[in-house]
Amino acid sequence: MGKGRLEAFSDGVIAIIITIMVLEMKVPHGDRLESLLPVLPVFLSYVLSFIYVGIYWNNHHHMLHASSRISGGVLWANLYLLFWLSLFPFATGWMGENHFAAGPSALYGFVLLMAAIAYYLLQQCIIKSEGESSLLRTALGQDWKGKLSPLVYLVAIVSTYFVPWLAQGLYLAMALVWLIPDRRIERAMARHGHQV
Amino acid sequence: MGKGRLEAFSDGVIAIIITIMVLEMKVPHGDRLESLLPVLPVFLSYVLSFIYVGIYWNNHHHMLHASSRISGGVLWANLYLLFWLSLFPFATGWMGENHFAAGPSALYGFVLLMAAIAYYLLQQCIIKSEGESSLLRTALGQDWKGKLSPLVYLVAIVSTYFVPWLAQGLYLAMALVWLIPDRRIERAMARHGHQV
Amino acid sequence: MGKGRLEAFSDGVIAIIITIMVLEMKVPHGDRLESLLPVLPVFLSYVLSFIYVGIYWNNHHHMLHASSRISGGVLWANLYLLFWLSLFPFATGWMGENHFAAGPSALYGFVLLMAAIAYYLLQQCIIKSEGESSLLRTALGQDWKGKLSPLVYLVAIVSTYFVPWLAQGLYLAMALVWLIPDRRIERAMARHGHQV
Amino acid sequence: MGKGRLEAFSDGVIAIIITIMVLEMKVPHGDRLESLLPVLPVFLSYVLSFIYVGIYWNNHHHMLHASSRISGGVLWANLYLLFWLSLFPFATGWMGENHFAAGPSALYGFVLLMAAIAYYLLQQCIIKSEGESSLLRTALGQDWKGKLSPLVYLVAIVSTYFVPWLAQGLYLAMALVWLIPDRRIERAMARHGHQV
Repeated sequence: MGKGRLEAFSDGVIAIIITIMVLEMKVPHGDRLESLLPVLPVFLSYVLSFIYVGIYWNNHHHMLHASSRISGGVLWANLYLLFWLSLFPFATGWMGENHFAAGPSALYGFVLLMAAIAYYLLQQCIIKSEGESSLLRTALGQDWKGKLSPLVYLVAIVSTYFVPWLAQGLYLAMALVWLIPDRRIERAMARHGHQV
Repeated sequence: MGKGRLEAFSDGVIAIIITIMVLEMKVPHGDRLESLLPVLPVFLSYVLSFIYVGIYWNNHHHMLHASSRISGGVLWANLYLLFWLSLFPFATGWMGENHFAAGPSALYGFVLLMAAIAYYLLQQCIIKSEGESSLLRTALGQDWKGKLSPLVYLVAIVSTYFVPWLAQGLYLAMALVWLIPDRRIERAMARHGHQV
Repeated sequence: MGKGRLEAFSDGVIAIIITIMVLEMKVPHGDRLESLLPVLPVFLSYVLSFIYVGIYWNNHHHMLHASSRISGGVLWANLYLLFWLSLFPFATGWMGENHFAAGPSALYGFVLLMAAIAYYLLQQCIIKSEGESSLLRTALGQDWKGKLSPLVYLVAIVSTYFVPWLAQGLYLAMALVWLIPDRRIERAMARHGHQV
Repeated sequence: MGKGRLEAFSDGVIAIIITIMVLEMKVPHGDRLESLLPVLPVFLSYVLSFIYVGIYWNNHHHMLHASSRISGGVLWANLYLLFWLSLFPFATGWMGENHFAAGPSALYGFVLLMAAIAYYLLQQCIIKSEGESSLLRTALGQDWKGKLSPLVYLVAIVSTYFVPWLAQGLYLAMALVWLIPDRRIERAMARHGHQV
């Protein structure tokens, strides 16, 4: 399986996910700016999900950039990640339409959690097929972000039943943690003399 | 017709199919986790179809990888396969919304059957244009999976009128049969000294 | 403007058009096979449009294959063609839902007519930028198919008010005329010693 | 980050945006041509947005063509632009369904304004990463179009409360200003001896 086609297919699916999420923002019926108010929570949840999907696209690219071969296992681990990402529009729409209520916020956190696990599995598959001394393995180091994220999502899911706004705060905080550029892979590549 | 553009177009269509299927899962109106229950059958049928479309994408790639030229016949056989794949969202949504009732399950099996036949036709077109001694012809061997699938789908369609759950079991079983990595083409390529 | 990116963008738009057309086939509410009957006309109009969009994708590829440079004029002529193709889902859905009634059938013919004209304009733009002695100009020859189509669509539009089914017959007939492989460009390329 | 994948992803998102906008044109229920009348304003707003998205796609391509490296900042500036472009279908649908009323027209102008600012930011990011003596910096010159557009959109937003039709006129006028081919980048490339 050529790496190029796997990248192109993943890009296609991620591009569609990021774009159809906006379809959950239904055009309001009134023609006054006030009619936009009920759409505001859906808009805010759309912004949050747009950032998350953007982060996944960005990191996915770097991860594949650091890998050289695509085995059958990597291919299905990749599809498994795309599966959970494809549930973002549903979870985003439900959370937004219910003004960040406990249940939908918990489901949103669950989708984040499963996507994080799927991303971790894909990473392990690639490392396994590339070897422990591989570029990706070296670049990740302790991978504290990859290990911290699922824990934070778990805490957020539980918190929805006690302090609903805490979950939103945690989702946003993790997004910002990931937004801070992660130069591990570029640095490791530079050390290996790869051209990025 | 360049092979690259045929692959890119097919990838685009398959990426869209796999992603818009999720739009059949309508966001529920309540904000409690129980509101998700009616969505569960649609979710399960989405999982099944996601696996099937993933298998088609995977196999489609391998088949084109083993072919060298794209004739006009191959092009239209490919569009014919994409046509039946494009009916997956409709068949999936109908089966899910009706909790795997007999009629929708039969239609789902019919779409699976027609897609399997279209895939077989595309394979024959490629072999015809590549020649009987071609890489793809050698790789397929007896092609028992390609010949078994339509029969199983036929049995499943008939079974919907007697033992509804049997059809679902057969659809799932065939998906698992196909999920088991099929190394025929890679092996044949290795024998021919091709670089995969 | 690189030819590759124009092709990729056009492929993306055409892949989306061909796939979202199927969204006009709404999942029926009953769970019996009879519930599919009202969907049948929408399905038939979907089949017709799928063939037309497939033909446009195929011919569009051949046309760009025979051209070497992309000027600003070609770029906008291409967007103009994509604009009319993007109205296929709307026209298809309206015609299907109204069981091929006169008004929707006339609109469908109008979209076919405008797309045919846009295709002709794009062809002229490419020939103008490539020169009268270019590969595409030679390949087209008298281009009787390109000149006949708009006339047939015009006749079909007018006929919807007198003999409704005649329009459908003409739409189908023109699709079949275009389906017959058109080897002009391949032949001209072979004569010019190009590798297809 | 390879420039190719950034282009491919942006193209995918823009292709989807330009195509799902048409889904806001709901198929009318009657089967007479008069049933199309209520759809006309949605159609007109679709035409306007199609032109704008086409312009963005065209200019985006030229801008990336003139840049050589993709930094993390450029990547997120690009996603920020795609975010505002992704709101076109929503703003277009709302404006069209309300027959160009003041509120929706103001929101439409706001989305145009934010997209123009995002485009400007992306341009600055690229110039910053390429250097003041870069091809893109030279090509832009005074960049009066880039500086004029936000001002015009601001005037249009304010005007919706006094002379509603003026806003539409300004949106259309700016689209035409941008449609006039902008040969700055090609010219600068020619001067630098680049092959376009």
